Amino acid sequence: MSYAKDLRFAPEEYARRVAKAKTAMAAAGIDLLIVTDPSNMNWLTGYDGWSFYVHQAVVLPVDDDPLWWGRGQDGNGARMTSWLAEDRIHPYADHFVQSTERHPMQDLARVLRERGWDAKRTGVEMDNYYFSAKAYQTLVAELPNARFQDATALVNWQRAVKSEPELVYMRRAARIVDAMHARIRDVVAPGMRKSDLVAEIYDAGLRGTADFGGDYAAIVPLVASGVEASAPHLTWTDKPLQSGEGTFFEVAGCYHHYHCPLSRTVFLGQPTQTFLDAEKAVLEGMEAGLEKARAGNTCEDVAAAFFGVLRTHGIEKDNRTGYPIGVSYPPDWGERTMSFRMGDRTVLEPNMTFHFMTGLWMDDWGFEITESLVIRDGAPEILANTPRELVVKA
Amino acid sequence: MSYAKDLRFAPEEYARRVAKAKTAMAAAGIDLLIVTDPSNMNWLTGYDGWSFYVHQAVVLPVDDDPLWWGRGQDGNGARMTSWLAEDRIHPYADHFVQSTERHPMQDLARVLRERGWDAKRTGVEMDNYYFSAKAYQTLVAELPNARFQDATALVNWQRAVKSEPELVYMRRAARIVDAMHARIRDVVAPGMRKSDLVAEIYDAGLRGTADFGGDYAAIVPLVASGVEASAPHLTWTDKPLQSGEGTFFEVAGCYHHYHCPLSRTVFLGQPTQTFLDAEKAVLEGMEAGLEKARAGNTCEDVAAAFFGVLRTHGIEKDNRTGYPIGVSYPPDWGERTMSFRMGDRTVLEPNMTFHFMTGLWMDDWGFEITESLVIRDGAPEILANTPRELVVKA
Repeated sequence: MSYAKDLRFAPEEYARRVAKAKTAMAAAGIDLLIVTDPSNMNWLTGYDGWSFYVHQAVVLPVDDDPLWWGRGQDGNGARMTSWLAEDRIHPYADHFVQSTERHPMQDLARVLRERGWDAKRTGVEMDNYYFSAKAYQTLVAELPNARFQDATALVNWQRAVKSEPELVYMRRAARIVDAMHARIRDVVAPGMRKSDLVAEIYDAGLRGTADFGGDYAAIVPLVASGVEASAPHLTWTDKPLQSGEGTFFEVAGCYHHYHCPLSRTVFLGQPTQTFLDAEKAVLEGMEAGLEKARAGNTCEDVAAAFFGVLRTHGIEKDNRTGYPIGVSYPPDWGERTMSFRMGDRTVLEPNMTFHFMTGLWMDDWGFEITESLVIRDGAPEILANTPRELVVKA
Repeated sequence: MSYAKDLRFAPEEYARRVAKAKTAMAAAGIDLLIVTDPSNMNWLTGYDGWSFYVHQAVVLPVDDDPLWWGRGQDGNGARMTSWLAEDRIHPYADHFVQSTERHPMQDLARVLRERGWDAKRTGVEMDNYYFSAKAYQTLVAELPNARFQDATALVNWQRAVKSEPELVYMRRAARIVDAMHARIRDVVAPGMRKSDLVAEIYDAGLRGTADFGGDYAAIVPLVASGVEASAPHLTWTDKPLQSGEGTFFEVAGCYHHYHCPLSRTVFLGQPTQTFLDAEKAVLEGMEAGLEKARAGNTCEDVAAAFFGVLRTHGIEKDNRTGYPIGVSYPPDWGERTMSFRMGDRTVLEPNMTFHFMTGLWMDDWGFEITESLVIRDGAPEILANTPRELVVKA
């Protein structure tokens, strides 16, 4: 039977992306690219599904259409969510899945041999997600005539400048994250179980607006309180919120897998001087950073401006302060290319999109007020519309 | 400063686990195990946090305590969530993160050299999650005197038989998943946006019960309708539910990262004969499979019993029908060791736990009624308490 396709973008958008990736492949001397990062698979073909816990790939020849290769039961998902024709979809048998005797990459090698693609200059994403050491070893053993080279982040870099249709989705994600923070501000209170508060955050993020509902984000809400907030990546328990503590809320609105991350901090009760000082330093630093966040400047310029203001307030931030965002799957909503950090001299271009991650994780407290933005020739477009202040609730 | 520890299990439980892993290492001839799978890191040390999007590891010497190695900003998370002492926590500098110039595994190699652990028989999880091809290459280049060997799933196998405290958490997860399916049954209706229904599912899963709240599951709700249900791993959009369609709901209750997955299928309107027949075949097949799911039998016995009944109903299921469950992080709530499939002759032992994944994904429809269970000497303990039937709503 044939399956109706349910695509998120017009065919021309996918064609443009594939052409862009092929240009980058040609420049890198790659004939055949094996793409295992689910975000890159989605960007090139539209393929969508929580199937990245098994080995799968999009294979892109520099002179031909891509193909999808994955688990048999996910073939119908590829038929419905990608623009690929039936003869470009290669499902593998289920006995390859999590087997102690065989590896799925043996089947991918067979597909490549059958297509005569087994002696190419072959790019593999050595350090993207879900391309395991064993997957690489198996491919190398099965394809002795291929010449492998590292193509980590090759497709990620092509994703950096967003198209207008992508920005439409990111602006929807921004409306969703505004709703999430509005909900937090409405309901947060001492004594509330953290897990119940997280239920409210998900509710706002999924219900979205009357016009569109939300998707799952690539990272769950990060919502640490008190001393736990000295670590950025703790999640929640069912313990109640305490008065006299600060809690940061790092959450993302998400629409068709496009993200708008945004953090705010809530203090329950009378904020300590530490939090008031942090608010002042971060907001002033953000203004300085945003002033530099424009086309023609570099990633480092933004970081230097922000770190410089922090330093005048006696705060040393020893980690990067931003990263590109867009379409993504777990475990990360960042694009893993450039970073707002010292030494990164990547030049900003119009329609690049970033999470300006200005969070502080100190010895026994943490504080996050952040923005997501679109680079322009002048001042950046700030995606969300949530007040940039410490939220104080009794 | 020193950080109060917030551990999920008693010290004796962790000690027992580490001893078990060391026994398996000794049997495999491994002196030093580099554990990068976040589920294994958690099981051995308690370490918990959404930090697995950067390189990190627990390193376990066969004759010494483990150490945690990870990103600098996550060090406080390790201090608070793991049982490890301060001198076993090794944070790395932030300029290693997603850098194009350096790789975090260079820092891990430095730590191993400094401890004199750079010439060991070193086990690495070649095909577990988050150990990239580049991570392995970097370690091999940096540690020329180490002898590497594949330790994929070595720790996962030690996790197969659950302790009583682990079963307590899984039974709580079961109460949570019961609440999730009860909510679905209560609210599902034609015209409801799928994203709004997913908000209800999260709400039930996070609020849990009056006694305990829920955690995030390692897989988001899988909720495909109509022809989309022919693919098992599609997620949701904001389109409304249609009358005359079946929708499966594969969701997991989760408590402190311990899972109880459970699937049910809802038909809106008058169910077609296809769905009524599928219900009959699956429920009859499950009875046959559950009869075999007991200590002393093999994984294959359960699969053969289920597949045999399906075949009498004219249904061929060409994928595995179950996998072990327990503590897990995205992207998979399975343990990736044995499977209920033909050829898997692993012998079942008391307190092994499985998701009996009896789903059908056919040409243009899908159907899932499943159970999660604890192996016993006699009949298994069925964790959830949700009616095992096709849910029909007008």
